[in-house]
Amino acid sequence: MELSAKQIANILNGIVEGNENVLVNGLAKIEEGTPGKLTFLANPLYTNYIYTTKASIVIVNKNFIPESPIDATLIRVDDAYSAFAKLIKYYNRNKQCSPGISTKASISNSAKIGNDVYIGDFVYIGENTIIADEVKIYPNVFIGDNVFIDSETVIFPGVSIYDNSKIGKRCNIHSGVVIGSDGFGFVPQKDNMYEKILQIGNVVIEDDVEIGANTTIDRATLGSTIIKRGVKLDNLIQVAHNVEIGENTVIAAQTGISGSTKIGRNCMIGGQVGIVGHLTIADNVKIAAQSGVSSSITKPGTVFMGSPAFEVDKFKRAYVYFRNFDNIISRIRNIEKKLKQ
Amino acid sequence: MELSAKQIANILNGIVEGNENVLVNGLAKIEEGTPGKLTFLANPLYTNYIYTTKASIVIVNKNFIPESPIDATLIRVDDAYSAFAKLIKYYNRNKQCSPGISTKASISNSAKIGNDVYIGDFVYIGENTIIADEVKIYPNVFIGDNVFIDSETVIFPGVSIYDNSKIGKRCNIHSGVVIGSDGFGFVPQKDNMYEKILQIGNVVIEDDVEIGANTTIDRATLGSTIIKRGVKLDNLIQVAHNVEIGENTVIAAQTGISGSTKIGRNCMIGGQVGIVGHLTIADNVKIAAQSGVSSSITKPGTVFMGSPAFEVDKFKRAYVYFRNFDNIISRIRNIEKKLKQ
Amino acid sequence: MELSAKQIANILNGIVEGNENVLVNGLAKIEEGTPGKLTFLANPLYTNYIYTTKASIVIVNKNFIPESPIDATLIRVDDAYSAFAKLIKYYNRNKQCSPGISTKASISNSAKIGNDVYIGDFVYIGENTIIADEVKIYPNVFIGDNVFIDSETVIFPGVSIYDNSKIGKRCNIHSGVVIGSDGFGFVPQKDNMYEKILQIGNVVIEDDVEIGANTTIDRATLGSTIIKRGVKLDNLIQVAHNVEIGENTVIAAQTGISGSTKIGRNCMIGGQVGIVGHLTIADNVKIAAQSGVSSSITKPGTVFMGSPAFEVDKFKRAYVYFRNFDNIISRIRNIEKKLKQ
Repeated sequence: MELSAKQIANILNGIVEGNENVLVNGLAKIEEGTPGKLTFLANPLYTNYIYTTKASIVIVNKNFIPESPIDATLIRVDDAYSAFAKLIKYYNRNKQCSPGISTKASISNSAKIGNDVYIGDFVYIGENTIIADEVKIYPNVFIGDNVFIDSETVIFPGVSIYDNSKIGKRCNIHSGVVIGSDGFGFVPQKDNMYEKILQIGNVVIEDDVEIGANTTIDRATLGSTIIKRGVKLDNLIQVAHNVEIGENTVIAAQTGISGSTKIGRNCMIGGQVGIVGHLTIADNVKIAAQSGVSSSITKPGTVFMGSPAFEVDKFKRAYVYFRNFDNIISRIRNIEKKLKQ
Repeated sequence: MELSAKQIANILNGIVEGNENVLVNGLAKIEEGTPGKLTFLANPLYTNYIYTTKASIVIVNKNFIPESPIDATLIRVDDAYSAFAKLIKYYNRNKQCSPGISTKASISNSAKIGNDVYIGDFVYIGENTIIADEVKIYPNVFIGDNVFIDSETVIFPGVSIYDNSKIGKRCNIHSGVVIGSDGFGFVPQKDNMYEKILQIGNVVIEDDVEIGANTTIDRATLGSTIIKRGVKLDNLIQVAHNVEIGENTVIAAQTGISGSTKIGRNCMIGGQVGIVGHLTIADNVKIAAQSGVSSSITKPGTVFMGSPAFEVDKFKRAYVYFRNFDNIISRIRNIEKKLKQ
Repeated sequence: MELSAKQIANILNGIVEGNENVLVNGLAKIEEGTPGKLTFLANPLYTNYIYTTKASIVIVNKNFIPESPIDATLIRVDDAYSAFAKLIKYYNRNKQCSPGISTKASISNSAKIGNDVYIGDFVYIGENTIIADEVKIYPNVFIGDNVFIDSETVIFPGVSIYDNSKIGKRCNIHSGVVIGSDGFGFVPQKDNMYEKILQIGNVVIEDDVEIGANTTIDRATLGSTIIKRGVKLDNLIQVAHNVEIGENTVIAAQTGISGSTKIGRNCMIGGQVGIVGHLTIADNVKIAAQSGVSSSITKPGTVFMGSPAFEVDKFKRAYVYFRNFDNIISRIRNIEKKLKQ
């Protein structure tokens, strides 16, 4: 898709400064711009690059005053970042898979499909499943029976969604995600073998949730594993059976949450954190990367670190001593020497 | 599927107490029961809920004596939990994919398919592969050449099984699992590049093994990576080439086991544990979550913790001191002061 | 495929010692050889096994002098390991999927497919994507729009490659890998909700890269996430948006690298390592398994360990003290006692 500076200025309600006929066919960072690309200047730290960028067009704030000549054509707008974002959305809307249901998909007769839905090739949709309006389902996705996927949600390629899962509006479910697999529960038998505990609950994902690639969310033993509105999960995260994650909590990659743990709202949890089962984590809690949380955190806003984790300031002081253990041991040796004398 | 109290009592050999015509169409936790749902009371801690549950039917033990009136219809059985489990199995048997081979699957002419097998849409099955009786293979599964899958095993959607893998009876292989990918072995060359070590072994999974979503099991360099009878693996676990995991060992999510390590029987390994390559772990060993095991554990029944890991009691004491490092440093400072005086 | 000792000797330019008509149909470790299998002796530590192996044929070095009688037929070659490797390649070439494009694949009209390409069943290839010569794409793979995959690369089953990704020559991309998923970036709003930062960059993977099963590589926010020539990534690794990994760096399973971090050449990074975002790691750095790297490592060749990580020797000494904390506390107690007296 090639657009001229003039056309872009029209989309953005902006003013062209320079050659209004110059054409661009893609986007670039300002420091990596090449001819034919469009970029933007929003962060003042990047201002220097505008004088050297090879990009053909730069979107700038209306009040930007150059300190030396600029080769690129400028488009002046109220807010350069928002304008750039708007342009991307425009670009994506025109580029993305248009609605339509592939004849190579396999959709049960009892499934109900809304309006303006995209269903790609080799998608399987089970019995009594409901796909609401404007949902996009990319190729090679499996969706079981009695699943509900609400409007404007996007399911990327290769996702597996087990029976009875419920997914809200405007969610993004990235490739390789597994939703609703069996919870990990076994009862030991007399012969050292294990009998599987029946897993008959489901997974409920509310609106505006993002789930990163290859993340796994087990369904509840009974009841529901619940991911509340606005939660953002990164890649390769493990969410065990009967976990609840509160609204707008953000969790970084490779973290694991064990069965039946309840996490509050607006928490920020770093990467590779492990949280033991059956705990309660209060609202606004922060947990540093690689921490291991082995008991409930009841005070909202606490910051924890370490494995097992405790208050971050106390951990950091203890860790400084640990790093300088050599030095501490010398002090003890010195004392012992003096006492001997 | 709607059933009456009377029908359910027949299935379970139970006795109805209350309205035998009341209908249910699903299952619920006792504390979350709603009209039209069936639940059960097995754990005495939940007894209070039976007086307030809105569920239409509750399965109870024969000897249960109510202390106040109960709205729900009761079905009395010998063992409420077992009866509930039996009902679920009955429900699942009637609900689950009935046998049949999709015309949208791609099955090699040389593959041999047993009786009562389900093979879903978009499944690929390679040359000389054998699928035994009553195996279920969900949509979008890839199974390579010379694979053997024994009877009653279930392969969930999106699984990839490389050539020459062997899988036992009654296994559950959850979505996104990869079995038989190349072991990670490279020989450094003079130019800092690496040459790949050939990976020509396979993966052998014995009977009654559970493998959680998105877990990866590499095939052996030569010989077999072996997962013994009754092993239970959670989600997102890494099992490297030539690893052996002993009978009935249970491993929690996101643990990684490096190449050629042998783990004993009846071990319990927590989540996010890392085990170095070429080690031997004795039988009945327990390893706490997030531990890093860097040398063999030869004494059966040992419990290890920490990274690097050592005996759990010693670790816990050391960690208490670490948490209170502040305090220890003050003691040293006090001593130094006294000595100066 | 059954071959005689004579046929194999011809392929390898070797000399048969023993029965040149004996047939083999597979490969085995020397210590696990059975009749009908071929094995090799390259590592002197395994020499004893040659006198007891049940394998029918053993490939040995020309200068090998037996110390007692050997049952197996020998094939003498210049370098037994190389010869065995050559034989495997020969075997794989004859065994592997022959070129051809499945009629069950879904390939856009605007995609360009090179010569001698294999494209399996249920593969989706998007608009304007280019697949170079001798690429192999196994079943159930998704490849988006504007992707470029260079010659001789192998994409295993169930891989998802998002739009605009570039992949070099001779790469192996194992099952379940996700390339080009959205970077994890959100801007907090006033109402505690998050707005997603647009992710419009791509992923660039250079030549000779290996990517293990279920590893995820997010695309850049702007610009490219870059995996340089010769990099080897194990299974279940997380590579965040805008990361760069230098030539011939090797990373073990379940490691996570946060956004915008740049890793040098020839580094060796253990399993389950976490690296914070926006750091720079120098060339030839080694990082021990389970370490957490929270600041840049500027000195090439440094070895780091711990979480947070510091110099390995210092860490190991500190950890010995930590393990013996009991003992250190006793020393402090003794001192305190003496001072009281």
